[in-house]
Amino acid sequence: MDNRRITAEALERLSECDDSRLREVMTSVIEHVHEIVREVKPSMEEWRKAIDFLTDVGHWSDEKRQEFIILSDTLGVTMLVDAICHQMPEGATETTVLGPFFVDGAESFSYGANISKGRGGESTLVTGSVTGLDGKPIGKARLDVWQAGPDGFYDVQKPDEFAEGNLRGVFETTETGHFAFCTVKPAPYPVPTDGPVGRMLLATGRHAWRPAHLHFIITAAGFQSVTTHLFVAGSEYLEGDVVQAVKESLIVDFTECDDSEEAARFNLPVPYFKLDHQFVLSPIS
Amino acid sequence: MDNRRITAEALERLSECDDSRLREVMTSVIEHVHEIVREVKPSMEEWRKAIDFLTDVGHWSDEKRQEFIILSDTLGVTMLVDAICHQMPEGATETTVLGPFFVDGAESFSYGANISKGRGGESTLVTGSVTGLDGKPIGKARLDVWQAGPDGFYDVQKPDEFAEGNLRGVFETTETGHFAFCTVKPAPYPVPTDGPVGRMLLATGRHAWRPAHLHFIITAAGFQSVTTHLFVAGSEYLEGDVVQAVKESLIVDFTECDDSEEAARFNLPVPYFKLDHQFVLSPIS
Repeated sequence: MDNRRITAEALERLSECDDSRLREVMTSVIEHVHEIVREVKPSMEEWRKAIDFLTDVGHWSDEKRQEFIILSDTLGVTMLVDAICHQMPEGATETTVLGPFFVDGAESFSYGANISKGRGGESTLVTGSVTGLDGKPIGKARLDVWQAGPDGFYDVQKPDEFAEGNLRGVFETTETGHFAFCTVKPAPYPVPTDGPVGRMLLATGRHAWRPAHLHFIITAAGFQSVTTHLFVAGSEYLEGDVVQAVKESLIVDFTECDDSEEAARFNLPVPYFKLDHQFVLSPIS
Repeated sequence: MDNRRITAEALERLSECDDSRLREVMTSVIEHVHEIVREVKPSMEEWRKAIDFLTDVGHWSDEKRQEFIILSDTLGVTMLVDAICHQMPEGATETTVLGPFFVDGAESFSYGANISKGRGGESTLVTGSVTGLDGKPIGKARLDVWQAGPDGFYDVQKPDEFAEGNLRGVFETTETGHFAFCTVKPAPYPVPTDGPVGRMLLATGRHAWRPAHLHFIITAAGFQSVTTHLFVAGSEYLEGDVVQAVKESLIVDFTECDDSEEAARFNLPVPYFKLDHQFVLSPIS
């Protein structure tokens, strides 16, 4: 049997699908997955290896570790979806990947709070504002913040070692659109390599590293929410980020400061690092 | 950024991959998965739904239930791999899907044994031979046999209800290349619909049914092993098998017999069904 008949038959099976969007998606998936098979001509053993790999990716995934997201991220798929979904107007803050370590329902903190909860590192003051495209401040915008520590680990990766919810928190902008929090400077880290995606990276001769960054999700009533990072200028791996997430506009300076008055106000040692950034949201059209 | 640059960058990351076959496979996978994204233009929510679907397929998979195989089967992927891998010479037994219910290490039985282990149903005698392309009998060929009962379930789907390993067994051909075993006539059944693939079938307006069949894996020293089915002629769903596995040459008659001498020899009631089939193996080239 001509093997294209098998593909035609698989597509015909969608003829009773009432959901036109789902039919569109499944048509594309079937056509391209069949095309991969025709190009690659897998042996049955290779097919079975693919089945086992995907199964393993599923087994490594739970609420705190999402290996399929890591797979999507490391194959450039997530950034492609991001590029297609988030065609932002000029001047708006650019988006990037969510990553696998976001935890919904993190603790809320007030202006200026320290989220390090005892994680050591180089003290850092993060300040900034959230505005609209017109520059007007947005009050009561919500910032979900999370990051790895100077050792490259997120709280959820070492629950026995670190205080719960450290380097993670929810902030709200003031009426003038400002926010501030204290933390420690993040460091580059590898995506988790102890699972199947790590094996894939190793087998394909790739490194697993990401440049140092802070994660943000910023939401405000009437505005498009933004999932993004701020990358530390000068960090290793800004070139070659394993998940291709770096955008020029998201690279920011962490400046060393010795303003003892400001340090005292935020209960920080001197010197400390400071990063100031303006996030710009687009209105919901 | 032009989104094709993201794809080009993802492919560049394979430049240090020493395993040329793996590079070939990953290149095809990245190109086509990115093409799906460009065609479908998923929202972030749809992307997340895809991640969750694949994760769920992984979570439903274990040693006894392989949901990724069911997914591959129901999208026609497995039969396409089969068509590409098994281009058999004229006259050789055709192959078809393994299915998700094969269990390695089933019990060995002697010629003529009954594998029903108390599962009720229409008694059936399966006889036949295994030969080479030249018609010469192959002795000591191994037949791994498994099937669903008349209720459409495999042993592993209802471990609390059925005796362990029923309707499953390993046989060896005699010196004259013959085999025989007693069982019950299989019935059509749906692939398992309680998991994510079942949800996919329902959402796309598809039925989940397979025509009645017996599974075989036949192996013999010096010959290519064959994974196949024998389908019951006249069974419902020979047209429209949910996994597209039916091939004309694999449809066989289950004839009603009243040969009381034969029945006595195999300890079967009269009347019984009988199926006789010659499997033809290709030499390893």
